[in-house]
Amino acid sequence: MGGDHAPGPILEGCLDAIQRFPINIKFVGQIEKINEASKKIGLYELMEKEIQNSRFELVASGSPIGMNEEATAVRKRKEASINVAMNLVKNNEAKAVYSAGNSGALMASAIFRIGRLKGIDRPAIGALFPTRDQSRPVLVLDVGANTDCKPNYLLQFALLGNIYAKDVLQIDSPKIGLLNIGEEDCKGNELSLQTFKLLSKEKDLNFLGNCEGRDVLSGEFDVVVCDGFTGNVLLKFLESVGGVLLDILKSELPRGRRGKVGSAFLKSNLMRIKKRLDHAEHGGALLLGVNGICVIGHGSSKSLSVVSALRLAHSAVNHDVMEHLIQLQKLPVLNS
Amino acid sequence: MGGDHAPGPILEGCLDAIQRFPINIKFVGQIEKINEASKKIGLYELMEKEIQNSRFELVASGSPIGMNEEATAVRKRKEASINVAMNLVKNNEAKAVYSAGNSGALMASAIFRIGRLKGIDRPAIGALFPTRDQSRPVLVLDVGANTDCKPNYLLQFALLGNIYAKDVLQIDSPKIGLLNIGEEDCKGNELSLQTFKLLSKEKDLNFLGNCEGRDVLSGEFDVVVCDGFTGNVLLKFLESVGGVLLDILKSELPRGRRGKVGSAFLKSNLMRIKKRLDHAEHGGALLLGVNGICVIGHGSSKSLSVVSALRLAHSAVNHDVMEHLIQLQKLPVLNS
Repeated sequence: MGGDHAPGPILEGCLDAIQRFPINIKFVGQIEKINEASKKIGLYELMEKEIQNSRFELVASGSPIGMNEEATAVRKRKEASINVAMNLVKNNEAKAVYSAGNSGALMASAIFRIGRLKGIDRPAIGALFPTRDQSRPVLVLDVGANTDCKPNYLLQFALLGNIYAKDVLQIDSPKIGLLNIGEEDCKGNELSLQTFKLLSKEKDLNFLGNCEGRDVLSGEFDVVVCDGFTGNVLLKFLESVGGVLLDILKSELPRGRRGKVGSAFLKSNLMRIKKRLDHAEHGGALLLGVNGICVIGHGSSKSLSVVSALRLAHSAVNHDVMEHLIQLQKLPVLNS
Repeated sequence: MGGDHAPGPILEGCLDAIQRFPINIKFVGQIEKINEASKKIGLYELMEKEIQNSRFELVASGSPIGMNEEATAVRKRKEASINVAMNLVKNNEAKAVYSAGNSGALMASAIFRIGRLKGIDRPAIGALFPTRDQSRPVLVLDVGANTDCKPNYLLQFALLGNIYAKDVLQIDSPKIGLLNIGEEDCKGNELSLQTFKLLSKEKDLNFLGNCEGRDVLSGEFDVVVCDGFTGNVLLKFLESVGGVLLDILKSELPRGRRGKVGSAFLKSNLMRIKKRLDHAEHGGALLLGVNGICVIGHGSSKSLSVVSALRLAHSAVNHDVMEHLIQLQKLPVLNS
């Protein structure tokens, strides 16, 4: 129910997703509003059909936490859609939760209702960045949950990212990097210098060392850990770069007569490039470190990004992320 | 003399620059090596001619500080090229110094020889990022001199950036932003929250508020301040993005028959786009907060980026940056 355009495009994405892969959806929100929206966009019949097929279910809740409300509103508004959805995961009635609503509220609701994993001080948000190698995204975390971090948090992010990269990205021995300002061990700020030492000692990780800004998209790393301030700046910067590049392409490509002819020929290829750069295609971010699978959508999510985010959730469930996270909690480093 | 490809391409850029704008150059280095390099690239005669014209001068020095040497090497190696060059500025025999060598060494040499401005705790490195608006770059600082910052440093960076933006970018009332993870005053890490308060109080600045990652390239801001860790990550990320995008263009544009025809028509326009994305075009960074004009080149600088960097130095001298920096030192906030 949450998100800038909810519930219409969210519903559209959900109904699309169940055609594409084998998931069932419990759609949590204000039933009347959902029915209204579904009629408006001509999806009422399809929705009803999928309800009959038991692929889709409407679950009643109160109004969503607004995008500009404080995250702590989840404590008072027990009937808010995110709380009702989170309870489904808590009570084993759902295997994952997805929301394009207030991400702070999602995080708070997850912490209060399903709780943190043992040994994890702070949950982190992990985002998949595209790399040079189209088939190989990199998981960057934290991208915004924790603005000020301690070295221990970053070590925990690395351990969590390692599991998600194994399961969701299907990489045997994920290559872990520490976002930093130089390749050498001695480079960095206080946080990264201390974190480097911790990561180097951790035998369960394939720690490759420092990852400079220029290396994030190189495809050299599968997981890059950083504090949530730097990660958030980088994520939003990346999202804007596609748009800036398209502006440059639009202004430079059709220049001159040859340019105009050439651009006309390239229309469909340019559309594909736009798609590849468009963050909608990349979908959701993962909330890591809580006792369940939570996928955070962009507030501005449209149908296509809902599908991507649900694919991510499906993949995490399918590859037993939760089971591996339970194993993770037994690591000595998380019990000291 | 410093830099990955020095002295050949540096010399080439210098000789090119003096054809393009009215500057004279004192080229500091090991004379024999310079002569050798100039012969190798066929520029010996031109160099000799410009020496006769008094536009160009060779100044003898020892070997340069290596790219991987500690910055503090400048204290022992008094005859290192960066020290000899810095002395020229100190003794009023040159108005600005440029180096593509070890940037830490340049900074250390500047601090030891020409000193910091009064009231400035830490010099910062400022880089010009291109924006959506081709004619309007944004000055981002610090991009790497100070990995851990205090709120006061960032306030000082803003004051310095303000002057450089006025003089070098010729903007009357530069719009200042604080790099942060949200638009609202209450968002951020400890550093940005405290810095926000300081910047809001400073009447000499046109402080617009927080600048998110996605806003850096929007053209909304003329100066963006941040700690040197985040700034460095962002700068290097930006430098790599151009290459990644070109890879995507190269792989996606020529797809299919229409794509091949279209791409052939667009060859020259694509070259122009490559140029626009290429950091070599954007040239040098500024060392702000020291008692002289210092331009830092990329270690990998080739001739074209040398020209850009020298243009930046020329522009700073031409628009009386030093005079305005001296005025800046009288501000009460720098004398408290």
